[in-house]
Amino acid sequence: MPGAGRAAGVRRLRPQRPEEPPAREDEDLLLAAAYVSDAQYNRNVPFETSPRAIRLYYFYNHWTMQVAIYFFICVDLSLALFEEPALFPLPFLATSIAEVLCLTAFFGRLVHFAKVTPQMVFWKDTKNICIMVTIVLTLIDLIIYGSLEAVNIHSIRWSRALRPVFLINFPESRQIRRTFRSIRNTLPDILYVFLLFMFSVLIFSLMALKLFGVRSLKTVEGLPYFTDILEIAFELYVLVTTANSPDVMMPAYNFSRWYSLYFITYIIINTYIFMSVFLAVVYNNYRKHLKNEILKLAYLKRRKMIEAFNILKVKVGTEFVVTEAQWKRLAKIVMPHISSPHLELLLRISDEGQKGHVDKMNFLRLADLLNIQVVAINIKRHPLEDWMPRVYQSSASLLVQRMVRHRIFVWVYDVIILVNAIFIALDEKKPFISNAEWLFLSLYIIEILLKLYTYEPRAYFGRKQFWNWFDTLIIIAALVATVANATIQSGNYNSQQILDIVLILRILRLLRIIVSIQRFRLIVTTLINIGPTILTFGGLVLVVYYVFAIIGMEAFQGKVWFFDPNFTTPEAQVCGNPALTGSAFARDHYCKNNFNDLASSFIVLMELTVVNQWHVLAGGFALVTHQAAKLYFISFHIVVVILIVNIFIAFILEAFFVAYSLEKSEVETAIEKKIQELGVGVQEEEMQDGKLIDNMDAKDSGFSGDDGDNKRKALKGLYFRIASKKYRTVDALLQQMFESEITPEDEGPSLDEILNLSPSDIYPKNPSFGNSA
Amino acid sequence: MPGAGRAAGVRRLRPQRPEEPPAREDEDLLLAAAYVSDAQYNRNVPFETSPRAIRLYYFYNHWTMQVAIYFFICVDLSLALFEEPALFPLPFLATSIAEVLCLTAFFGRLVHFAKVTPQMVFWKDTKNICIMVTIVLTLIDLIIYGSLEAVNIHSIRWSRALRPVFLINFPESRQIRRTFRSIRNTLPDILYVFLLFMFSVLIFSLMALKLFGVRSLKTVEGLPYFTDILEIAFELYVLVTTANSPDVMMPAYNFSRWYSLYFITYIIINTYIFMSVFLAVVYNNYRKHLKNEILKLAYLKRRKMIEAFNILKVKVGTEFVVTEAQWKRLAKIVMPHISSPHLELLLRISDEGQKGHVDKMNFLRLADLLNIQVVAINIKRHPLEDWMPRVYQSSASLLVQRMVRHRIFVWVYDVIILVNAIFIALDEKKPFISNAEWLFLSLYIIEILLKLYTYEPRAYFGRKQFWNWFDTLIIIAALVATVANATIQSGNYNSQQILDIVLILRILRLLRIIVSIQRFRLIVTTLINIGPTILTFGGLVLVVYYVFAIIGMEAFQGKVWFFDPNFTTPEAQVCGNPALTGSAFARDHYCKNNFNDLASSFIVLMELTVVNQWHVLAGGFALVTHQAAKLYFISFHIVVVILIVNIFIAFILEAFFVAYSLEKSEVETAIEKKIQELGVGVQEEEMQDGKLIDNMDAKDSGFSGDDGDNKRKALKGLYFRIASKKYRTVDALLQQMFESEITPEDEGPSLDEILNLSPSDIYPKNPSFGNSA
Repeated sequence: MPGAGRAAGVRRLRPQRPEEPPAREDEDLLLAAAYVSDAQYNRNVPFETSPRAIRLYYFYNHWTMQVAIYFFICVDLSLALFEEPALFPLPFLATSIAEVLCLTAFFGRLVHFAKVTPQMVFWKDTKNICIMVTIVLTLIDLIIYGSLEAVNIHSIRWSRALRPVFLINFPESRQIRRTFRSIRNTLPDILYVFLLFMFSVLIFSLMALKLFGVRSLKTVEGLPYFTDILEIAFELYVLVTTANSPDVMMPAYNFSRWYSLYFITYIIINTYIFMSVFLAVVYNNYRKHLKNEILKLAYLKRRKMIEAFNILKVKVGTEFVVTEAQWKRLAKIVMPHISSPHLELLLRISDEGQKGHVDKMNFLRLADLLNIQVVAINIKRHPLEDWMPRVYQSSASLLVQRMVRHRIFVWVYDVIILVNAIFIALDEKKPFISNAEWLFLSLYIIEILLKLYTYEPRAYFGRKQFWNWFDTLIIIAALVATVANATIQSGNYNSQQILDIVLILRILRLLRIIVSIQRFRLIVTTLINIGPTILTFGGLVLVVYYVFAIIGMEAFQGKVWFFDPNFTTPEAQVCGNPALTGSAFARDHYCKNNFNDLASSFIVLMELTVVNQWHVLAGGFALVTHQAAKLYFISFHIVVVILIVNIFIAFILEAFFVAYSLEKSEVETAIEKKIQELGVGVQEEEMQDGKLIDNMDAKDSGFSGDDGDNKRKALKGLYFRIASKKYRTVDALLQQMFESEITPEDEGPSLDEILNLSPSDIYPKNPSFGNSA
Repeated sequence: MPGAGRAAGVRRLRPQRPEEPPAREDEDLLLAAAYVSDAQYNRNVPFETSPRAIRLYYFYNHWTMQVAIYFFICVDLSLALFEEPALFPLPFLATSIAEVLCLTAFFGRLVHFAKVTPQMVFWKDTKNICIMVTIVLTLIDLIIYGSLEAVNIHSIRWSRALRPVFLINFPESRQIRRTFRSIRNTLPDILYVFLLFMFSVLIFSLMALKLFGVRSLKTVEGLPYFTDILEIAFELYVLVTTANSPDVMMPAYNFSRWYSLYFITYIIINTYIFMSVFLAVVYNNYRKHLKNEILKLAYLKRRKMIEAFNILKVKVGTEFVVTEAQWKRLAKIVMPHISSPHLELLLRISDEGQKGHVDKMNFLRLADLLNIQVVAINIKRHPLEDWMPRVYQSSASLLVQRMVRHRIFVWVYDVIILVNAIFIALDEKKPFISNAEWLFLSLYIIEILLKLYTYEPRAYFGRKQFWNWFDTLIIIAALVATVANATIQSGNYNSQQILDIVLILRILRLLRIIVSIQRFRLIVTTLINIGPTILTFGGLVLVVYYVFAIIGMEAFQGKVWFFDPNFTTPEAQVCGNPALTGSAFARDHYCKNNFNDLASSFIVLMELTVVNQWHVLAGGFALVTHQAAKLYFISFHIVVVILIVNIFIAFILEAFFVAYSLEKSEVETAIEKKIQELGVGVQEEEMQDGKLIDNMDAKDSGFSGDDGDNKRKALKGLYFRIASKKYRTVDALLQQMFESEITPEDEGPSLDEILNLSPSDIYPKNPSFGNSA
């Protein structure tokens, strides 16, 4: 990142003078804001510091540009749905025009990036080279394919497998790239284990050949058992995945009891031990590199904030500070839509002594401060109380409110849900039961109305009140769908689709029981919290699936056909391909598991990921093409199951351990403490337990008596809540933990050192008891 | 452990006086030695400190007693092989007499233990109560069964399922007990996740019932698809284990493409996320409790060493020490077979200043010192050099030796092994190939002879030279078997068994290639190092398998029969049970997977552990008995796959991480350092690389010139080597790490505190970046 270094150099040439023209000052502010914004979003794009480049950089980071680029990536990827073999066929001309459009957009984005970043950096970055090469290759492929198509020669659109390159290589997909990096870093370590594992499979194959090959045993299908070394190696590889256990053992076991020892030894060594070692190696690398990357991110963030500080600093007394006015302008530029109470709160936190300026230590925290989603809560009374106070405060009304807040109210509804579950399990053909559905629906609606009567509606539907939203939406959807269904049925038209939706919504209502069991809610909340990072995995899996799907479609399209299950012609029995006669693939009716379009391919790949019966699928496609086709399935297994699924497990393990250590310890940030200190914080639990309004009232009245404090008055009637106390990603939490350990004086290592950090630098030379177990 | 406390009290009553009678001194020494020995082997049995009790305690710990008790446990467990349903039937009288004998032995051991330990402790220990209750229950069962048998009523020998209690509850099986404790501790945490998981399965079952039940779809077998809620719940539970994927999806998927979304969602939530969460919870608990237990062990060890020190200490100057003479006598009692150079070495390490006494800090290390297997190596010249020095040192002989030591020699033999592998894969019917076998065998024998010529034979076959032993044994075994086979064949008698052994040995020879690839050797060494602890798992699995096998045999014996594969009678097709007609169990020829004897049961349970096709087995046994039989299989899955296999994975992960952090850091103990300092150490690598003799010679000559040092002279010609630098168990390593962090002054918390340590006491309140990622 020489760009950042140059920026520092530029700054030193023009020291801050009060007589500086305002334009220059604006530019400085814009530059500082760019640094702060980069720190806030952990962007690490080195940019030129000329005013024009900064403006271009702002435009580059604008959300419309990001949305546009993602839109084009989606279009580009989804083209596979419309190209041969297509789910929705479109002419080649249409798809190729769309593809050229996408390529133009990608190229435009790249040019934009080149204008923003220093030339040296741009050309050194493999990401950019990758994108350019892919664009060129795709164009070449389009031209060749198009011209061959024009003379009616059908060739292969090989460049389609390169499309995910765009998804990976744009700077926005940092997470996916990191996972890929993690895989790449794991490869050398895993390679030797893999070779040893393959060696072990080969040794066992040789043994099987010698032990069973001469016995002329037969498999269940009556085929010769273990006579060909390649066949044996494949069967034993499948046994590692357990997919053909115990069938592969049965002929030998039937022959002699002792042969089972061979298979048991094989399974213990190869399935249990080697597969665990794979997990261990992948997990170990994941942890190691995760830590390294987070350290890098934290140091880079710190550097950017220091750059920003150096641009804006003025000398007051003996120390450099940033004036309150400058600070506010900066915050407004970084976050244009910030509300003024929010800004006021942040200033109160940053300028503790209310000295009119922000010192270095507090300034460095700005990016974190802006990152914390603070929800301002307007404390208001229930609208009904305003509207008809007498009725709302009457003893009958208060009784209702007390009742709704009581624990028994929850229990009663839990029982109702259970009864509902039993009714659902029963046959809904009986009129008694289908009528009961209306009763349950109205009970649920009454519950929501009662809650809205008791609690302040805007607080009840607060932005982060996930479970309340969930409750209400499910009920309303069920109401709408049920009514729609009833209307349609009364018109003697029976739509199974709508009925399906009604039934599913009816069952989803049962999920509400999770809300009332504390431990369940905790587990689900944890799972939801790691949701965003699971989506990263979704991206990674999408990339791998896409590449394999394109290759699979080119190799296997049209080889296997699905016929309606009611067809019993001999052709339908063998999926339209005589090569499948008598195969397990045809016998198990797997005809619909084919590569005839993108959606089918994805479903087949999903089945391969689940592993079971993958050898039947592999065997089927090998029969209709060539035995070498099994290599496609084996490599898919190695990439997806051995690498990606293990990384997924590693990630879940790590997320849980971090969540666990968090639960035990309460890492509270300075900001949260400050909010609590100022007495304007609301605990999340108070919100959830439905005691919100009570607490609010109590605090509100205490607050009103304290009119002397001017600042407090500004915040009066407003409460702040840290939007998510549970850190949303493992990264965020780890970064937070690490940052709390860097002292404010520590400017971190130099840029080059940061970029060349290796995992071994972090690991302590002498492991201590504390962090090894 | 009031016993230990009392011991301290007794000691205080009789302070150490020089005029004490020798008998008293001997008793003190014996008591101290008992403490040291307990610390050495991590035994935590509180014992009485009266001289008689101590002698009984020595007898209790004697290896003959331990072997005897394990022998009786083995006999007791293996009785199941001879009881109905028996592999080798014996009359009830014989097995019951054997069982009564075993019970007597267990009772005797218990009485012995009661004499050693304080009564209070004995009766408070649940282990002892368990054993007594089991003995009584077994006797009652034997009497009832015997008397019913006498009047020809066949009842159930239910007490057989209790037999593993003896294996678990004798103090020697500490490791297995700990794993059980770990499982018990995990249960509360896992319970809620499990309930939520079951809830999710139920919700999905309801959905499946509503979505697919009304569609009157058919499975591949033509059965109605998803119409019964219990059936659906079972199928979906099976889907979590992936055993029926994608078959369970196919009917719905064939009906409509969109229904695949239901199954994909189900698999992502229940198979991937929930199963990973189970692993995370189990692993987290395992780590937490492992650390806690190791902390306890370390503190208890420290306490015992302090007890021993306090018994033997005398005042010299200002500090309490143990005299050299006492120290030597103590070591001799604890380890009667210690060689005098070894003892001398330990003294040199303990009495650094050669002051004639050992101070407290060094005394506390005694247990660790004794635990380190130090191998004394007599540096001797090659016997041939002594016998005929002229010939051995001739230039031709030296050339041979240089050649053997050269890297190319290894490579040549690697190539030979590879060629051998190819020959093995080819058909050995051809005479050319079967004759080549003799060539390879002689090449291998020549290699070993050449190595023995070059290296000193006693060093080459050193106690820890695993790979050399492996090499030689494999070759000799192959030679013997091949010769035996040839002899038999020349007599026109063809034994397939011997041929099998010959072939396996021939293939195992290929493993030698691992030795010559450094990275392979490392991985295998790590795997061998964690071997002993994997055996603990073997014990745990044995216990669980045994209990399930006994229950399974009582429930399912004789329901399914295996017929010779050549039989094609209708009865043989349905495993002798008409209920199986048309079932997947019969179709897949699973008849031999039955519970008709212990060995078959174990193999079925192994197949269930591997998971694949377990639903076919469960379905088969449910058909021949009752649908409720599926509960047996589900509970086996929960116990073995969800709990034990996950603990196994957790263990492998942890072992690898510890091994990894060790590799990076070199935790060297004081002892190892000292050996190196004294210049009498030999690096393990030097031994392995075959450079041993060269180095020895060089060092030896340097050593001889240093005659002034008397002590050194005593050690002259002897080299010591730490037998295993890689710590053999995770425990040992962690304990070592932890002990290196306790200062010698730290006497640890009080006994009660130690015994009540809970995991939360260890965890830091504020997690730091260092130990969370």
